[in-house]
Amino acid sequence: MSEALLRLEAFLHEQIPLSRAMGVSVRSYDADGLVIDAPLGPNHNHLGTAFGGSLSAIATLTGYALLWMELGETNAHIVIKSSTIRYLRPVRTGICAVCRRLDAETLAHLKETYTRRGKAQVDLQVRVMEDQQVCVEFEGLFVVMR
Amino acid sequence: MSEALLRLEAFLHEQIPLSRAMGVSVRSYDADGLVIDAPLGPNHNHLGTAFGGSLSAIATLTGYALLWMELGETNAHIVIKSSTIRYLRPVRTGICAVCRRLDAETLAHLKETYTRRGKAQVDLQVRVMEDQQVCVEFEGLFVVMR
Repeated sequence: MSEALLRLEAFLHEQIPLSRAMGVSVRSYDADGLVIDAPLGPNHNHLGTAFGGSLSAIATLTGYALLWMELGETNAHIVIKSSTIRYLRPVRTGICAVCRRLDAETLAHLKETYTRRGKAQVDLQVRVMEDQQVCVEFEGLFVVMR
Repeated sequence: MSEALLRLEAFLHEQIPLSRAMGVSVRSYDADGLVIDAPLGPNHNHLGTAFGGSLSAIATLTGYALLWMELGETNAHIVIKSSTIRYLRPVRTGICAVCRRLDAETLAHLKETYTRRGKAQVDLQVRVMEDQQVCVEFEGLFVVMR
């Protein structure tokens, strides 16, 4: 794993203790997006599948982490403003959340607006996948500010 | 605290381990709704306020718990199908989530549909309050099934 991903994982575990309690690992960051996963053990519900609250928390964290990487670990504050989540299938083995990369134009616009106004917002999509099927679809509106 | 609330809290801590990691307590259940709270310690973010993922997880749990109480601890399975959350203000001291009671007509309809079809769904509203201000608004669609 790259040093940037190790720094991201350490940052999440230190600054957002729930990420440690959930057993979150930063898996990869490439052209497809940022991947975070977590075992079922600390995240199961009364039915033995992933708890919806764990899924929404990990999706939120994955969106946050993608921005942290895309913005190059700036000192910008990143917060979530709103989100919508749809639970399509139960997650039975482990949680694997993928946040898609921003396309170049969207990222450039985000950075330009942030630089000019000190504040900008962006929509991010996160999916939780299992056996190549989409189990959860999440869309979050994140705000970047000084 | 009533025995039913103690049973609910024990059930959540045993069956949904994240609720224990978040330090969730079932506070009250009366005409105003079901109240669950959790300290900031295990639930803060990098800014020292409540992590959005903790807030969404606790809102989800509070909706689930309200149904558990309203349905009288039936053997019905309760799962969440979708939700939307809006973060209006940062939560600075501790998390207090309130799920409003269902009105009598909605509850009767839910039970009747569940009995007849083995499956029914219902919208629940949860708010996270601090200093008498609404910090978070959550709406979740829950499914009750055999």
